[in-house]
Amino acid sequence: MNTNVLNKLTYGLYILSSKYKDKPSGCIIDACIQAGSNPDRILISVMHSNYTREIIEMSGVFCVSVLAESCPFELIKHFGFQSSRNVDKFDGLTNFTDINGVPCILSNVCAVISARVVDVIDLGSHTVFIGEVKDQKFLDEAKPMTYAYYQEKVKPTYSNPGNNIAKNTVPENAARMPMPQESQNDQKIIGWKCTICGFVYSDPVLPDDYQCPVCGHPSSDFVPIYE
Amino acid sequence: MNTNVLNKLTYGLYILSSKYKDKPSGCIIDACIQAGSNPDRILISVMHSNYTREIIEMSGVFCVSVLAESCPFELIKHFGFQSSRNVDKFDGLTNFTDINGVPCILSNVCAVISARVVDVIDLGSHTVFIGEVKDQKFLDEAKPMTYAYYQEKVKPTYSNPGNNIAKNTVPENAARMPMPQESQNDQKIIGWKCTICGFVYSDPVLPDDYQCPVCGHPSSDFVPIYE
Repeated sequence: MNTNVLNKLTYGLYILSSKYKDKPSGCIIDACIQAGSNPDRILISVMHSNYTREIIEMSGVFCVSVLAESCPFELIKHFGFQSSRNVDKFDGLTNFTDINGVPCILSNVCAVISARVVDVIDLGSHTVFIGEVKDQKFLDEAKPMTYAYYQEKVKPTYSNPGNNIAKNTVPENAARMPMPQESQNDQKIIGWKCTICGFVYSDPVLPDDYQCPVCGHPSSDFVPIYE
Repeated sequence: MNTNVLNKLTYGLYILSSKYKDKPSGCIIDACIQAGSNPDRILISVMHSNYTREIIEMSGVFCVSVLAESCPFELIKHFGFQSSRNVDKFDGLTNFTDINGVPCILSNVCAVISARVVDVIDLGSHTVFIGEVKDQKFLDEAKPMTYAYYQEKVKPTYSNPGNNIAKNTVPENAARMPMPQESQNDQKIIGWKCTICGFVYSDPVLPDDYQCPVCGHPSSDFVPIYE
């Protein structure tokens, strides 16, 4: 079975947020659809291990911010590559509070959809939430970012370090990425580093189907670490 | 509440098919996501009134064909703007039968995903099916068609009759679309016609939020019918 086939499905890119008591939480998701109308319902799928999933289960509310194509990698990294368990991702960002008391951000976002959970389906690896839409805000005429656009134009890669993110916002670790001409083929490889989030895999052989346990990016986003 | 906000969510375009006993069925959907892994699960949302929804409920299996950007409007119209209740949409098309005995087509498709239903959620207007992936076939390197691409590049419109569909495949009703210079402003409007599927709305005033009951396209896709 070719597991790349499922990558042919089309996704957007969204900040999912929620808040329970005084604890806000936010993360990046790609799976969000309208699942019903009259009343409008949206459906999201969230990794089970995700802290925002826990917060939504306790609060019963969530907010989906539709990222615009203009969104810099730095913001996606901020929400996607660290856990709200350890950090308040909204601290220091210009944000507002939606109808359900959930924080969301205003910039680089086309629209914001606020929902109250009406159904929860536990699929083991992921949890599906269906929410009744309680409020929607239109913020920007800009094109929404697709996951394909993110992969092609926003994400910094080893093979394409000069993409648009380099022009906009250089993520901390991008500056540390070795350029192709710097590779040291005569030295022994002792590990692999994720160019997206900086995670280090401490083994000389990186399996082709390996995914970064921190940010979920594939083995093609890793560069060798030499002795 | 601005109902256009939900249109900011990103979708693909897919042929959904199923078969129960000797009755095949197929339609167009835009809402399909991977909802879980280990085992892989895909999730679709289908309008309740849709005949393919009934067939899936009886058969417990479905197949999602991921349309490529090359897919002509004529094929989308064939699967999207008529009901399998009345016609065998696979008759005369080159098709194959998947692992579950469900027919699917081979051309203008990037990939085919075959699933067995593990959960059904009835949301009134729509039914959500979650299926465990039983087989996946990769057919074409072509880019998958997004719903936004369909709206912008494939769908024939009154305001943009010269888009790429005019160059590729002219749908039957597109030839009957009046050009802007043909509009007869001095005559009385007696109704409105959907330029996508030909449906006629027999009232001089078409509400802004009206959606075609046959093909689901908005009021902006209707042209006036004069006395």
